[in-house]
Amino acid sequence: MEFQLDSRLKDDTFFIGDLPLSKVLLMNTANFPWIILVPRINDVSEIFDLNIEHQQRYFEECNFLLKGMSELYLSNKMNIATLGNIVPQLHTHIIVRFVDDDAWPSPVWSHTENNQYKPEEAKLQIDKIGKLLDHYV
Amino acid sequence: MEFQLDSRLKDDTFFIGDLPLSKVLLMNTANFPWIILVPRINDVSEIFDLNIEHQQRYFEECNFLLKGMSELYLSNKMNIATLGNIVPQLHTHIIVRFVDDDAWPSPVWSHTENNQYKPEEAKLQIDKIGKLLDHYV
Repeated sequence: MEFQLDSRLKDDTFFIGDLPLSKVLLMNTANFPWIILVPRINDVSEIFDLNIEHQQRYFEECNFLLKGMSELYLSNKMNIATLGNIVPQLHTHIIVRFVDDDAWPSPVWSHTENNQYKPEEAKLQIDKIGKLLDHYV
Repeated sequence: MEFQLDSRLKDDTFFIGDLPLSKVLLMNTANFPWIILVPRINDVSEIFDLNIEHQQRYFEECNFLLKGMSELYLSNKMNIATLGNIVPQLHTHIIVRFVDDDAWPSPVWSHTENNQYKPEEAKLQIDKIGKLLDHYV
């Protein structure tokens, strides 16, 4: 069956591109460079529900983007989290943090007054992160 | 040089045991079954700063406890996060979530009125999770 992205993830993000296993999405929150990875496997909500090969692949793809986003944005710290309390479809947040960002040093979820991207700003980020995906081997 | 655990992590937790790479700690927050893994490597703050062998090992140990804690406590959802905005020493939170817990469905960091364990409650959790570590292969 074709992979179905959860409608809430779809509504809150822009599509950047696909890695071999995961869909890569830009969170529509201009306050932080914030992406979401979603493995294209239906009906999975925990990392350990993936088969061993997919677990390994998912770890590699998350780690590739964790490092890549850190280098691209010159982060002070990277945050990575797999929560899924509201949207159970397995997905992982990767967020670039700066010591002067809107939530520092709290987790981004503590900051509730977020701004959406203007279309041209979103396009800029999508292009920038999209180029990173081209380097995945 | 011998591994030095950050003093803030030490103050906020109880020692449960060691896996081959990581120290496993019980967060002193009785509201949620919440453990922290810390690889025993000094001066590392991002997962990708570990060498490849240690990255792989750290992923396996985190994943083992993510699944193990889920089974032990019959979670509704597992949360895993590597943040480190306040304590830069690399560490990963693994938290068992229930639909009726004190913060649901928010991340646990949104819930600021946490209770510490009574000594006998802490001992119970440490023993219970400690037995899980014995099964790591």
